[in-house]
Amino acid sequence: MKVSRERWSKEFRDWFRDIIFNSGVYEYRYPIKGVGVWPPYGMKIRRYVLNILKGLLEEKGHEEVLFPTLIPEEFLRKESEHIRSFEEEIFWVTRGGKEALTQRLALRPTSETAIMPVLKLCIKSHTDLPLKIYQVVNIFRSETKAPHPLIRLREVTTFKEAHTAHTTFEEAEKQVREAIEIYAKFFDELGIPYIISKRPEWDKFAGAVYTIAFDTLLPDGRVLQIGTVHNLGQNFSKAFEVTYLKPDGKHEYVYTTSYGISERVIAALVGIHGDDHGLVLPPKVAPVQSIIIPIYYTEEERGRACEEARGIAAELKGKGLRVKVDDRKDITPGEKFYFWEMKGVPLRIEIGPKDLKEGKVTLVRRDSLERWRVRREEVYEEVIKSLNEISKGLRERAWSWFKERIVRVGGLEEADSAIREGKIVEVPWCGREECGFRIEEQLTCKVLGVDINEEENAEGACVICRKDARHYVRIAKTY
Amino acid sequence: MKVSRERWSKEFRDWFRDIIFNSGVYEYRYPIKGVGVWPPYGMKIRRYVLNILKGLLEEKGHEEVLFPTLIPEEFLRKESEHIRSFEEEIFWVTRGGKEALTQRLALRPTSETAIMPVLKLCIKSHTDLPLKIYQVVNIFRSETKAPHPLIRLREVTTFKEAHTAHTTFEEAEKQVREAIEIYAKFFDELGIPYIISKRPEWDKFAGAVYTIAFDTLLPDGRVLQIGTVHNLGQNFSKAFEVTYLKPDGKHEYVYTTSYGISERVIAALVGIHGDDHGLVLPPKVAPVQSIIIPIYYTEEERGRACEEARGIAAELKGKGLRVKVDDRKDITPGEKFYFWEMKGVPLRIEIGPKDLKEGKVTLVRRDSLERWRVRREEVYEEVIKSLNEISKGLRERAWSWFKERIVRVGGLEEADSAIREGKIVEVPWCGREECGFRIEEQLTCKVLGVDINEEENAEGACVICRKDARHYVRIAKTY
Repeated sequence: MKVSRERWSKEFRDWFRDIIFNSGVYEYRYPIKGVGVWPPYGMKIRRYVLNILKGLLEEKGHEEVLFPTLIPEEFLRKESEHIRSFEEEIFWVTRGGKEALTQRLALRPTSETAIMPVLKLCIKSHTDLPLKIYQVVNIFRSETKAPHPLIRLREVTTFKEAHTAHTTFEEAEKQVREAIEIYAKFFDELGIPYIISKRPEWDKFAGAVYTIAFDTLLPDGRVLQIGTVHNLGQNFSKAFEVTYLKPDGKHEYVYTTSYGISERVIAALVGIHGDDHGLVLPPKVAPVQSIIIPIYYTEEERGRACEEARGIAAELKGKGLRVKVDDRKDITPGEKFYFWEMKGVPLRIEIGPKDLKEGKVTLVRRDSLERWRVRREEVYEEVIKSLNEISKGLRERAWSWFKERIVRVGGLEEADSAIREGKIVEVPWCGREECGFRIEEQLTCKVLGVDINEEENAEGACVICRKDARHYVRIAKTY
Repeated sequence: MKVSRERWSKEFRDWFRDIIFNSGVYEYRYPIKGVGVWPPYGMKIRRYVLNILKGLLEEKGHEEVLFPTLIPEEFLRKESEHIRSFEEEIFWVTRGGKEALTQRLALRPTSETAIMPVLKLCIKSHTDLPLKIYQVVNIFRSETKAPHPLIRLREVTTFKEAHTAHTTFEEAEKQVREAIEIYAKFFDELGIPYIISKRPEWDKFAGAVYTIAFDTLLPDGRVLQIGTVHNLGQNFSKAFEVTYLKPDGKHEYVYTTSYGISERVIAALVGIHGDDHGLVLPPKVAPVQSIIIPIYYTEEERGRACEEARGIAAELKGKGLRVKVDDRKDITPGEKFYFWEMKGVPLRIEIGPKDLKEGKVTLVRRDSLERWRVRREEVYEEVIKSLNEISKGLRERAWSWFKERIVRVGGLEEADSAIREGKIVEVPWCGREECGFRIEEQLTCKVLGVDINEEENAEGACVICRKDARHYVRIAKTY
């Protein structure tokens, strides 16, 4: 995407919509606004992405569960901060058949209030803790803001939410750190760059003691929140009376955390790695890691090229790779190149008459479009090596682009122009809410929060009140 | 379950509720009636069961997709039979936040009406057909009948529904046969016996040309429908105007089918294989296929038994088995036996002082509680052999019990007493609806339909009108 800054925003959004549609990632032509369909290709990417995430969670002892979508109004209202924040965006089921329900049922906007009443029944003693569960579900938010495919949906169909319960606040803190580590590893696997910020008080999750968020940046210069981790303290356990028996025989409320990732991670994958040819998929989540295309002019050449293609496919599949031969007769090799580039297949293997004669194959990398030849016997090693290089290359390219777009400035004017250039800006801030609001107002941006590793680090004066700054606070335009 | 027939019904239901709770298969204490939670252990069983089903579907070219939960009222109403049947049980979303929605949204009771508008956009030509997709989703039915965990739910959280589109009615017929084959294989893998019947006209799926159903029998003598396959003809494609371009340049409506399986398959697994000790899981879907329990009296013995246990576990895991060592210190071996029997682990491996001394281990089969010893070096082969025998044994035991309970009789009185004995009964029937209704009324049972392989096979006279019978029709008490 080499377009001038002024045209970015519009162009990126169009590019994004075209690419997810053309590559088969997401079908957004559903008769409800803000609601879409996962077609087969996108569903496969989703599956591989979720497999990585599930693997990381399970490695750390999280167990998968599945809670209902429907939450009785009474339970949703138990934690007062929570309902206050979600009230405006709850979808309410009010009728069953032709009857009005005696109690309205909410479609979950997130599952804390569905899970807590069950934890209350399951947690008895300190030996039941820590308890670490997760689920992958759909959640619903009757957004008033304009919806955007994969980014701002009214039915989010891919919400991985983890919920944990602990004996002490310190244990919950440790869990927050574990969650951050898991998410960092997850985004690293996908080559998605991020910053980790503690959200300001006014933007934390409703009912949380504090919220940590992972943010990335899309090519249009807007920050996309791609993961959040909440320390919920005893807020929910008190509202739902979830206690445990301590070794000393007393009861205490449990401490809980929750953390979530949605299909926005797929939006980030598409937006960050993609180019004018279409998707560029990290090999780990590519439904087809290598596409083999036989090239021929005569029927005899076709036979030989297809045979060689199938032989190579069998070898690579046997060794665990996801490989496909495109031997369609009705379209040209050029059309096939275009088709599979659009779909983001990391590596193309071409087998033409010259390759066959010389016992070689031609490889083409999707990320760099680099093209080279190797001997037939070396195909497997070369494919493995290239896929690793592609993974690494995508990650490095994305991180270097990202890092260039984080700048630290001292004054409002520089901040304003950096934000208009699509950057994440760090400015000195006194830490007071009113100055935070004024930053957001004056720069039409959002305060992302402060670096979790470097909370009190600022030099100089708050960009608003000019009093001593406590933090560099991160600000940006956001989705 | 050796209980007298008179007490079956009550006892089986209690047994079932206890067992799914105690073994951790399903948590039914959720604050909405007819809605439950999958805890970790049940979730793992669910995962293995779904993996088998997904594998069978994908082998036959079905691709996984994911459609939204929300369906606009207008679309749900397009197929008139369909809405008429579901009208009474749709959950309606009528409010978003504090606003009334301009159009009511249904929570899908099944997804034909969500999928058809998208197929309309995706299917252009005969080359796009056949189209075979499936999804695993939650569906909602505001049932008025008493709910029952895993069997009659208001939020079904595990609905595998496949949807296909074809060029001709014959192709759709072929697809129905393929679906039947897939489901038969699936239930065979789980050792769940079944009969396959063509449902009577009045009990077919709303909007279908005809419905084929898989039924099994639970120990209380009630039939449980565990799978359905619908030939939808052009009913939905006409309602949604889904056409394709034929090679001759004309447009025709596509022919569609759909087929589904729900968590009732887990209810069948539990009910059919379980016993007074708890679950009995077929090895293929057991989260733990073999539990290893070290037995010791002294601390020194403990060390050696645990070491041996871990060694065997490592060996079996390395060879792809799901194995766990229970080395908890705070409970006795007897308590461990009880715990893992309840959870249905197919094979127990005990390692006691005598075993260690003689270089042996003790094996115990969950299904037969048979107990024997083998030499340490033979453990892997013996475990594999036993797991296969258990799979086979469960299937055979279930089928033989099932077959004994299918009887063919000529008159109403015999039919009545067989039904009251908890059997599936085949009676001669003229084929007319009014006689079908009278059978259901007089015997307080349900007509399941006729054998799909033997539609017109009856001898003698219809049990109601005494005119010539066309079919043996299957009847039973049902869930």
